[in-house]
Amino acid sequence: MRKVAIIGIGQVPVREHWGKSLRELAVDALWQALEDANRNEIDGLVVGNMLSGTLSEQEHLGALIADFAGFPGVEAVKVEGACASGAAAFRQGLLAVASGQKNCVAVVGVEKLTERSGWHTTSALATAADADFETSVGLTFVALNALVKQRFMYEHQVSKEQFAYFPMLAHQNAVHNPQAMFRKPITIEQYLKAKMIAEPINLLDSSPIADGAAAVILVPWDDVGKNSQAIEVLACEVGTDTIALHDRQEMLQMKGIEISAQRAFATAGITPQDISFFEPHDAFSIMTVLSLQASGFMSAIEALNHARNGYFTIDGTLPICTMGGLKGRGHPVGATGVYQIVEAVLQLRGAAPKAIQVKNPRYGLTQNVGGTGATVVTTILRRKD
Amino acid sequence: MRKVAIIGIGQVPVREHWGKSLRELAVDALWQALEDANRNEIDGLVVGNMLSGTLSEQEHLGALIADFAGFPGVEAVKVEGACASGAAAFRQGLLAVASGQKNCVAVVGVEKLTERSGWHTTSALATAADADFETSVGLTFVALNALVKQRFMYEHQVSKEQFAYFPMLAHQNAVHNPQAMFRKPITIEQYLKAKMIAEPINLLDSSPIADGAAAVILVPWDDVGKNSQAIEVLACEVGTDTIALHDRQEMLQMKGIEISAQRAFATAGITPQDISFFEPHDAFSIMTVLSLQASGFMSAIEALNHARNGYFTIDGTLPICTMGGLKGRGHPVGATGVYQIVEAVLQLRGAAPKAIQVKNPRYGLTQNVGGTGATVVTTILRRKD
Repeated sequence: MRKVAIIGIGQVPVREHWGKSLRELAVDALWQALEDANRNEIDGLVVGNMLSGTLSEQEHLGALIADFAGFPGVEAVKVEGACASGAAAFRQGLLAVASGQKNCVAVVGVEKLTERSGWHTTSALATAADADFETSVGLTFVALNALVKQRFMYEHQVSKEQFAYFPMLAHQNAVHNPQAMFRKPITIEQYLKAKMIAEPINLLDSSPIADGAAAVILVPWDDVGKNSQAIEVLACEVGTDTIALHDRQEMLQMKGIEISAQRAFATAGITPQDISFFEPHDAFSIMTVLSLQASGFMSAIEALNHARNGYFTIDGTLPICTMGGLKGRGHPVGATGVYQIVEAVLQLRGAAPKAIQVKNPRYGLTQNVGGTGATVVTTILRRKD
Repeated sequence: MRKVAIIGIGQVPVREHWGKSLRELAVDALWQALEDANRNEIDGLVVGNMLSGTLSEQEHLGALIADFAGFPGVEAVKVEGACASGAAAFRQGLLAVASGQKNCVAVVGVEKLTERSGWHTTSALATAADADFETSVGLTFVALNALVKQRFMYEHQVSKEQFAYFPMLAHQNAVHNPQAMFRKPITIEQYLKAKMIAEPINLLDSSPIADGAAAVILVPWDDVGKNSQAIEVLACEVGTDTIALHDRQEMLQMKGIEISAQRAFATAGITPQDISFFEPHDAFSIMTVLSLQASGFMSAIEALNHARNGYFTIDGTLPICTMGGLKGRGHPVGATGVYQIVEAVLQLRGAAPKAIQVKNPRYGLTQNVGGTGATVVTTILRRKD
């Protein structure tokens, strides 16, 4: 296996992109990444997407985007792993380069969720859950996360208010990220008054439906030369769990996250204490809390307590959601995992907007979660020494 | 890159499986393959599927099937490349083992097309085409192939009758394959009287909508030992082309097939003359003709002529559709590419039903095509010496 580097990144602002098609969003991000990498050819393309078949009546995104980007003929494929589709695609792109099969692979995550009405989108997102045993009885994707949060609040006897600090933190960072969807801070008062979506998850606990595309260019580390912008992919590992919550022995354990994180730390040869910043999959605030625990950073209760004492801010011990996270940047599902990696590269290059640049980071960890923890991809990146 | 072997195969009969769910079909095939391989563990799963999100309201098949098969935690992902999803998944599974990342990967192709009404299925299949420029103006997937066939008949001045021999051949072989959907021969009279679907493609030119699942187990060649059933994966290469037909310079060239086949022959270090049998993607008879040409076997006109002179029969020079092909076995789209590989393994093991066993085959070639030639995966397998 060869060492692999990310030498180019691209992203379109996360928005409701009424004026751009799926393929335009994807190619905008891809071309930005190629320009950033100073390359004009690729020999492979992996696309991460979850819902284009359902919402845009368009499957077959590998060939579609390869052609529209100007690379017809190139090997191209789509990868899907629910909300973890973006990082799952990154994993396949990484394998192609690490194995020696390909020398310059583009990974593009793209999603256009505003193509149809809200009802359609909610139904489509529920295909991440178990259709026969969860969706069929009326559970939406938010409802499943609400069940987990309900259980957590009961077991640990914590209040709704304690979760407020995670979305507040995410919005606070998103203010400074021009690519983010929500660039304004929120207050605890707003959080406590926010409309309930699925008790106990309210609107400000939830990441927004959005459109977006992000891309990275992967090459063998040996081809990097003197490129000071190159970032090393130290590990990218996948873990899974049952999709249906009722099949899990312990609903709050998040085994998929544990497996993925443990594999990633083992591959990278480092520990959670070495991580300079963490991009969790904060689709709902409860997921951030459980991820911090299952990834080995701290207990869930410590996570809740740390959220209000500055531990997770940009100059804190473990900065999280540094560019706004899913809550502040937005969550275009199949693109999210690639946005996280693009943002981590910006941090490691020292190229993040000044107010949200983590000080001298060395290792960045991103975690993309599909379903309620059923597919998890943990990626560890390292700055060039 | 390590050499890779297929040590286990499984398939469910291609049928309208009203009594089995998507996950049941997949796991039936997977367990058969594991039993055949004499293994009870895997360290990776790649699922090929095109339409479960649209037709079964179920995405996230990687985690779903890993769990249902009894392997929660294992790395799992879904791969999509329209009708080539099955072989595209095989390609990713191959990379995982060849790279040294995984030591026993299951690849499962699964599709359940009869979940919804015919209208829904036709719409869903059209997501393989270009939604903005083809489907939006009313073109179905059959209509796109009809345009190609129309053009071919005009350019080469050939009659409809000349295409009849391909489906006749496929059905003739399917008679002997217990997994096939249509186990009865068809006559030229039936073909000429068959209902027109999209002029000039009639019902007997078209592969049927069906449900099915097929699976293979991949391990490093060095682990094979004395297993005489192991088959070597000599090459598996992907080529792409524009999805939209109007974007192609030459509609009958099938560049995606050319690229994929040329890459596969180069990787394998052999030529078309070395191939013992060919499993083409005969979704429509015109595709068989164009594939034989684009893969380097012969000109399209030679292909048409050979179809009636016995060249392609089991004891002919180049047997094709040996188990019935897509036309006779059936075409559960995301599963088809894996069925082709399973059938090629049976041939190379000498384990095909007697009447359709190719005599002493050495190299088998399978070709899985997505869209009207936009994603093509060509695989070359070799019998152990």
